[in-house]
Amino acid sequence: MARVLITTVPFGAHNNLPLELLASTDAGYSVNPLGRRLKEAELAQMAVDTEIIIAGTEPITATVMDAATNLKLISRVGIGLDNVDLHAARERGIAVSYTPEAPAPAVAELTIGLILSLLRHTHLANLKMHRGEWDRHMGRRISEVTIGIIGTGRIGSRVLRRIPVFGTPRTLVNDLNPEHKLVPESKLEWVSKDTIYREADVISVHVPFTKQTRNMIGLQQLRQMKPDALIINTSRGGIINESDLYQVLSEGHLGGAAIDVFQDEPYVGPLGEIDRCLLTCHMGSMSIDCRSRMEIEATEEVVRFLRGLDLQNLVPEDEYLSQQLFRG
Amino acid sequence: MARVLITTVPFGAHNNLPLELLASTDAGYSVNPLGRRLKEAELAQMAVDTEIIIAGTEPITATVMDAATNLKLISRVGIGLDNVDLHAARERGIAVSYTPEAPAPAVAELTIGLILSLLRHTHLANLKMHRGEWDRHMGRRISEVTIGIIGTGRIGSRVLRRIPVFGTPRTLVNDLNPEHKLVPESKLEWVSKDTIYREADVISVHVPFTKQTRNMIGLQQLRQMKPDALIINTSRGGIINESDLYQVLSEGHLGGAAIDVFQDEPYVGPLGEIDRCLLTCHMGSMSIDCRSRMEIEATEEVVRFLRGLDLQNLVPEDEYLSQQLFRG
Repeated sequence: MARVLITTVPFGAHNNLPLELLASTDAGYSVNPLGRRLKEAELAQMAVDTEIIIAGTEPITATVMDAATNLKLISRVGIGLDNVDLHAARERGIAVSYTPEAPAPAVAELTIGLILSLLRHTHLANLKMHRGEWDRHMGRRISEVTIGIIGTGRIGSRVLRRIPVFGTPRTLVNDLNPEHKLVPESKLEWVSKDTIYREADVISVHVPFTKQTRNMIGLQQLRQMKPDALIINTSRGGIINESDLYQVLSEGHLGGAAIDVFQDEPYVGPLGEIDRCLLTCHMGSMSIDCRSRMEIEATEEVVRFLRGLDLQNLVPEDEYLSQQLFRG
Repeated sequence: MARVLITTVPFGAHNNLPLELLASTDAGYSVNPLGRRLKEAELAQMAVDTEIIIAGTEPITATVMDAATNLKLISRVGIGLDNVDLHAARERGIAVSYTPEAPAPAVAELTIGLILSLLRHTHLANLKMHRGEWDRHMGRRISEVTIGIIGTGRIGSRVLRRIPVFGTPRTLVNDLNPEHKLVPESKLEWVSKDTIYREADVISVHVPFTKQTRNMIGLQQLRQMKPDALIINTSRGGIINESDLYQVLSEGHLGGAAIDVFQDEPYVGPLGEIDRCLLTCHMGSMSIDCRSRMEIEATEEVVRFLRGLDLQNLVPEDEYLSQQLFRG
């Protein structure tokens, strides 16, 4: 009987080391056969006899934990914990580990690519060229616009460190956690979120999904933005309200949007009707190096657990506190 | 009768100053009514009475000049001179000016955006999402790949100055002009073009269109490249042979391509069938700031001419020599 269930997909596809590490333990493992993010009921059924989940972003709820009576460790491949009910896990004596550093470089680099694409309408030109339409679009350079970053943690701060090479005349930042104000970036203006909504030309959000950030950007915030503002979400679906975004884009407001994360994934929905909305499929962490590092770190934690060693990447206490206060 | 013909489009669309400058001269101007790059015969007809052309990339050949018997000045909005027969102009006493610095920042920034998009398959995911398909693609970061830049002049050197912020483990460079070896970039390996074709993961060309560079990258060069190599052309159509590129992409070779320039523009052709081929419509210089600067500089030269002042942006002698030797 396999003791380890790998729910995150893909896994081990570009670097075999995580699977080799697991094979070295004799614990046995099975892999999510559906090849996509599991729904709660699917996971509850699949995890019935599981001791360890190597987890993605599927919902690991109290219901799942009650079904998975042998569950002892959830090892998250990634940083977001909005899908794991941390308190339900603690009540049941289930340890939770994660890999907070590994995805950040890949998400930051994707974000900058999305900013450059939106600013130059590359995505739009490409869609049209593939339909046989030659329709040239005038764009802007980073040096012509005000950048607004909401969330200056691991990912936001990496974005902020990379963009000045393109010349950033004005960069507005905001963070939920005032400690992040200590990030030593030059030429940053710490402002309210409303100021970012009103004054930034490019707005990118890099915050966790919590009660505070759910629907953080809805109709009211979107309508405050400049008519040609560009908005990017590579954090979590639901932080920008999808139907509100669809509504304002349909009405001709905003110059474009780049959305990598959705409330329900896989996403199939009306944003696909909007040509100037650049859509990717939760690919923020999907660079070979970052994904491998995430999988290896999560698997090493599992191997430690199986060998009775101390865990090294346990979720810290402030994540429990934050979830208690703000769970989305 | 208008003495000035503006053939490049768009013109004055985002900054009215060039048109105001022209209006201040009483010379009168007319604008290309077709709204797209003119063909030789169209231009010959349109320029019959013209004294000055504010020119784009349309063919300004001896035939055109023979039709435009009053022509005294060609003021190119941009850098490439492959479309202007410099010697035919000289023989007829027609001055030629250009704006070599203005487009470079915009082309370099577009190029980096295309590199990031190709590396993460953003363009491909977006095409599929707009068709209702959720198909996640594993990508690479710049820090995982070898970059190869052919051409280290105004644009290539700007690309080389901006990408190290993403971490570039190995950067291969080549230039037609050995003097460019003096560009003081760190960590560059000066190698043959063949070495770039064989060893680079991302290959971007930044060379003028000449006899030397026409079809510089054809079947033989493409087939030397790594099976997952990514190739970018934001310089001029015809430097990468389009039908050869189509052939190798159709056969499954190369990880992707980003093509902004085409032999015949507007381009409608088979590359549009290839989903992993990112296509844009000669938008390299199309950022508001760079385009405005190009238009203003080209117009200022026209105003100087009309006022009998010395021209300041005359095409230098080495461009005449280069065209004599290498015209494509």
